[in-house]
Amino acid sequence: MRPHDQLREVSIEVGYLASNPASVLYKSGSTIVLCTASLETNVPPWLVGKGKGWVTAEYNMLPGSTSPRKKRERGGKVDGRTTEIQRLIGRSLRSVVDLEALGENSIVVDCDVLQADGGTRTASITGGFIALAIATQQAVPGSTIGNGPLKDSVAATSVGLIGEECKLDLDYELDFAADVDMNVVMTGSGRFVEIQGTGEEATFDDQQLAELLRLAKIGIAELTAQQIAALK
Amino acid sequence: MRPHDQLREVSIEVGYLASNPASVLYKSGSTIVLCTASLETNVPPWLVGKGKGWVTAEYNMLPGSTSPRKKRERGGKVDGRTTEIQRLIGRSLRSVVDLEALGENSIVVDCDVLQADGGTRTASITGGFIALAIATQQAVPGSTIGNGPLKDSVAATSVGLIGEECKLDLDYELDFAADVDMNVVMTGSGRFVEIQGTGEEATFDDQQLAELLRLAKIGIAELTAQQIAALK
Amino acid sequence: MRPHDQLREVSIEVGYLASNPASVLYKSGSTIVLCTASLETNVPPWLVGKGKGWVTAEYNMLPGSTSPRKKRERGGKVDGRTTEIQRLIGRSLRSVVDLEALGENSIVVDCDVLQADGGTRTASITGGFIALAIATQQAVPGSTIGNGPLKDSVAATSVGLIGEECKLDLDYELDFAADVDMNVVMTGSGRFVEIQGTGEEATFDDQQLAELLRLAKIGIAELTAQQIAALK
Amino acid sequence: MRPHDQLREVSIEVGYLASNPASVLYKSGSTIVLCTASLETNVPPWLVGKGKGWVTAEYNMLPGSTSPRKKRERGGKVDGRTTEIQRLIGRSLRSVVDLEALGENSIVVDCDVLQADGGTRTASITGGFIALAIATQQAVPGSTIGNGPLKDSVAATSVGLIGEECKLDLDYELDFAADVDMNVVMTGSGRFVEIQGTGEEATFDDQQLAELLRLAKIGIAELTAQQIAALK
Amino acid sequence: MRPHDQLREVSIEVGYLASNPASVLYKSGSTIVLCTASLETNVPPWLVGKGKGWVTAEYNMLPGSTSPRKKRERGGKVDGRTTEIQRLIGRSLRSVVDLEALGENSIVVDCDVLQADGGTRTASITGGFIALAIATQQAVPGSTIGNGPLKDSVAATSVGLIGEECKLDLDYELDFAADVDMNVVMTGSGRFVEIQGTGEEATFDDQQLAELLRLAKIGIAELTAQQIAALK
Amino acid sequence: MRPHDQLREVSIEVGYLASNPASVLYKSGSTIVLCTASLETNVPPWLVGKGKGWVTAEYNMLPGSTSPRKKRERGGKVDGRTTEIQRLIGRSLRSVVDLEALGENSIVVDCDVLQADGGTRTASITGGFIALAIATQQAVPGSTIGNGPLKDSVAATSVGLIGEECKLDLDYELDFAADVDMNVVMTGSGRFVEIQGTGEEATFDDQQLAELLRLAKIGIAELTAQQIAALK
Repeated sequence: MRPHDQLREVSIEVGYLASNPASVLYKSGSTIVLCTASLETNVPPWLVGKGKGWVTAEYNMLPGSTSPRKKRERGGKVDGRTTEIQRLIGRSLRSVVDLEALGENSIVVDCDVLQADGGTRTASITGGFIALAIATQQAVPGSTIGNGPLKDSVAATSVGLIGEECKLDLDYELDFAADVDMNVVMTGSGRFVEIQGTGEEATFDDQQLAELLRLAKIGIAELTAQQIAALK
Repeated sequence: MRPHDQLREVSIEVGYLASNPASVLYKSGSTIVLCTASLETNVPPWLVGKGKGWVTAEYNMLPGSTSPRKKRERGGKVDGRTTEIQRLIGRSLRSVVDLEALGENSIVVDCDVLQADGGTRTASITGGFIALAIATQQAVPGSTIGNGPLKDSVAATSVGLIGEECKLDLDYELDFAADVDMNVVMTGSGRFVEIQGTGEEATFDDQQLAELLRLAKIGIAELTAQQIAALK
Repeated sequence: MRPHDQLREVSIEVGYLASNPASVLYKSGSTIVLCTASLETNVPPWLVGKGKGWVTAEYNMLPGSTSPRKKRERGGKVDGRTTEIQRLIGRSLRSVVDLEALGENSIVVDCDVLQADGGTRTASITGGFIALAIATQQAVPGSTIGNGPLKDSVAATSVGLIGEECKLDLDYELDFAADVDMNVVMTGSGRFVEIQGTGEEATFDDQQLAELLRLAKIGIAELTAQQIAALK
Repeated sequence: MRPHDQLREVSIEVGYLASNPASVLYKSGSTIVLCTASLETNVPPWLVGKGKGWVTAEYNMLPGSTSPRKKRERGGKVDGRTTEIQRLIGRSLRSVVDLEALGENSIVVDCDVLQADGGTRTASITGGFIALAIATQQAVPGSTIGNGPLKDSVAATSVGLIGEECKLDLDYELDFAADVDMNVVMTGSGRFVEIQGTGEEATFDDQQLAELLRLAKIGIAELTAQQIAALK
Repeated sequence: MRPHDQLREVSIEVGYLASNPASVLYKSGSTIVLCTASLETNVPPWLVGKGKGWVTAEYNMLPGSTSPRKKRERGGKVDGRTTEIQRLIGRSLRSVVDLEALGENSIVVDCDVLQADGGTRTASITGGFIALAIATQQAVPGSTIGNGPLKDSVAATSVGLIGEECKLDLDYELDFAADVDMNVVMTGSGRFVEIQGTGEEATFDDQQLAELLRLAKIGIAELTAQQIAALK
Repeated sequence: MRPHDQLREVSIEVGYLASNPASVLYKSGSTIVLCTASLETNVPPWLVGKGKGWVTAEYNMLPGSTSPRKKRERGGKVDGRTTEIQRLIGRSLRSVVDLEALGENSIVVDCDVLQADGGTRTASITGGFIALAIATQQAVPGSTIGNGPLKDSVAATSVGLIGEECKLDLDYELDFAADVDMNVVMTGSGRFVEIQGTGEEATFDDQQLAELLRLAKIGIAELTAQQIAALK
């Protein structure tokens, strides 16, 4: 059994699609997300002429990513969970982008989940950042993290409370068992971007909160290292 | 100017609609939310025959609640922000409900914002709990908080980081100025239900997190007292 | 019991929302409608450059306005009854507006029913006119009814045939019992704007029509007086 | 020019579609409506087991029925005008049906406008009644008007005020010129079913109302005679 | 019984709607389609300024065209079969149009099925071409087939395999019995535009394919002759 | 340059997703499709109790599969091309399934295009068959092709006419250049399932048709061999 403060194994394949260097096949244990960033040389209507760019994200689970099969979100409304997740991914990625430095360019980061085993939203942020970084270098050649549109890196993981025990990086089985689960998004330099802690039919106290955040920091430091390595 | 650790003035009118005792006109400063709880003696399809009930919430801003006028969400899709908010309200309310003790009953809590001046989602949780408590007493006569379907009370407030200063209970102007804002949902007994801290284009550190949570606890203790008074 | 030729009690609270003087909480017996008029300094695409303005209305019942709870009209189509009612409100209000005198401005009148006990569409017209009048004075300062964009006032009531008896101002119970019901919209100067008489599974003759119209005129004269008083 | 109290020429072809005897090609001047009534041996969910039937109508204008071409109402929402018209047709037809005598059967009357030259809703009612009558005889063999599910016949026409002159049966050109227009639905025995008088940007007085109704009665008497002849 | 290589009787009424010469009532046996072509002096956004026109088609079955009644495609999504058919009609018609010669004009061909007895898509192409030809002559006066925007004529029929026998022009009953059915679209000069052969739960071999195509050519030659006659 | 009668290189990875053996990553040149078959032990409503199963397919292109990015089909209607393609895939797969032998089971084959370079629909059929075959063996253990629910194998390719030359297996560039393109679906035993030949703004004659079909047979024989090998 994986220790309570250890991440699942991560695998990152940059340039997975021959047609787009900013395509990343990101695996965290059995969770597989294909993240592709598309650069467009225009901006949404509300930003035209303001001298700044935009970054947005879309999240989707393929029908075969779960068992039983997940019904396709089509021909109707996008469900609440999906909307919430893709708003989170977009906000997280934007938190490390200097939109003025990006110029009037847009980057859409698509996160399509090929196989889901828990943690798909945090995998989307962590893998999506890599795709974003590549697309940003296309938009502003010669830029690096900390020098150009990217002010920092960003990564995410989940932590949870199962009975009285805190655990890092919940897979589906752990997530199902968790009384409280929390998604934490942090920059490479160790500052918080988002904390979303939720106790569906449960609650938590200050001490548990502290332990959950401690584990999250351990995980995110490791993910940051892997992102930097993949971008080399 | 309101001190940084003081809530806006709260006003609670229980039984605002003659036709429904579980209707609450909740005001927090200039924010006005009409919360009505409707009891139905059935449950959603996936709960039929399981001997437990359900609590859900819907959130809506009236077009005249903002200036300029907010377009009505109709004849199409519900926007992402609305979906996210009503999911938060529903989860928060359910965290203090013993669904088995509710029996096969459903309660829908409608939170319609008549006037919006920041903090509409936290007002919806705090006011919505009062409407929920009354409807719960209709479902299970003689029950009280802690004795029957309601395990505890629940309330919410927002806190934020403006420049380097932490503030309690953001109105629209403060919210607009905030670099980081955080919604905190807690039970009457002081345990966390939800923490949603978000730095759109900004980040925060451990010390700021601690101060934000300290302010939130002050506010929620005060709101809990007002809820109890209103339900008397 | 209310005499057959007498209106329910009317209460009108102008400036109900602090953020918008053109907001009116209109009560007719237990029916409560919040009418807010929003002025926009532009016109719909088909009127651009024609030197005239536009007035339109939206009507909505809040879920808690009825018992059992009314399902929200969202994420799909607006139902036929709603569409029909808001078209009626819009036409009625426009009948007293000189759109050229309004200039290239639009006014949207939102009629949100907080509590429904029959007569919500006629309450929306009568209350909506008050909100419209205030917004018109914002658009054309110094204008009055009869001098500026507002050519006249407009108000509405319902009348019905219950068995062989004609009744003024149907509340829910009377409306349910009525064989024929008729909505009548008239100007302050006593001219007809709309007559919509409907016999669902029933019919009526000339004499009954005459008596229904006589009652409607009594009611509308009284409503006109109350509108004028509220606008003082 | 057609006298002010004379209908356009009417032509009625019963059994227009070989596959359905209850199909009627109804022409009023250049207005052409194909009315088909479909009998179904079941009822909508809310009527199951109540021992009564249902009659409903759908109205549609074909794209080629107007010039310029009318956009098809598809893949989205049905517009307000269409909804309002088909509700009027349905109510009008039901006013002469004894739903108990119909048994647990449903009749849908489809009114598809092949060519539109004003008066399509009244043509739909007048022609739709003929299709309904045939379908009713299929449902209850041997029944006749006045003896069985059909209590009476029903027909409709429009009247209008153009300047100071009242006119019967408005074609598109007259309708466009009219300050006030009124649709009147009456039974064969001369009782009112619906009166919908509307003054878009205009109003009318008692005397004008009386003259409009007088003309409508002349027209409807003539239409009733033609319906009876067609059903022979 | 109709011989296996003979079409159903065809009837073509050009100018069926007085308001539009490019309206054709096309009958093939009991199948009746109203085809109307509407000329618009503009083009879709993606063609603006390219010096060429556009031709598109819409297909629809009226509810009364089948028994039992066909539900109207409204207030939601257009079903797959409809989409597929109208794309086929559009492509087929465009195959004989020189879009440059049409200039910056659009022609929409509406094919509304009044009665359906098999072969509605091929009837729509054959009848739709006649309406298109008339509208083309409105757009480019003096043009003829082969001289102007119309490079050729186009017509369509279906063929099928029933057991071991090949049949031309399937009506509903034959279509229902067919193991393989094939729609063939050809120009007046005898070249293929589309071949769509489908074996739902069945397959076919080379020899059967050859015989199906032979029958289709016989039918299309006859239809072409009738089109030319109708356009005289 | 690839010879005119040679397929692109094919690569087939069976069991690509650890969670589902019936998942196939199918590559044809640069086109990549993930085909997953999900077995459900029920049938659609219209088949309940009929003792037979159902096979259906869904097709989707991921946004990153094309450059520029393809807008996601969400929150609205599925476009015509998608609908048409997934209907084709479903029909093609069903042509080789004995639905009675499948029992009351359903199989949904999802074809998600990760990278699109022409021929995505034929790749979906060829790869989808492999996924279907595995799921069928899950439903009916011990069954093989020709012995159990699968009567035969099925595969597909495209052929086209570019100027006067016929080509097998069109990639995006060839497809773009083609005057006529044809999708051919055949069984492993060499019978036709579907022929869809289309000349958008072009036509073809008998001789060209013969050559196109000849090439298609060469390609399909090769694909059939690869399918069999992959299923070993």
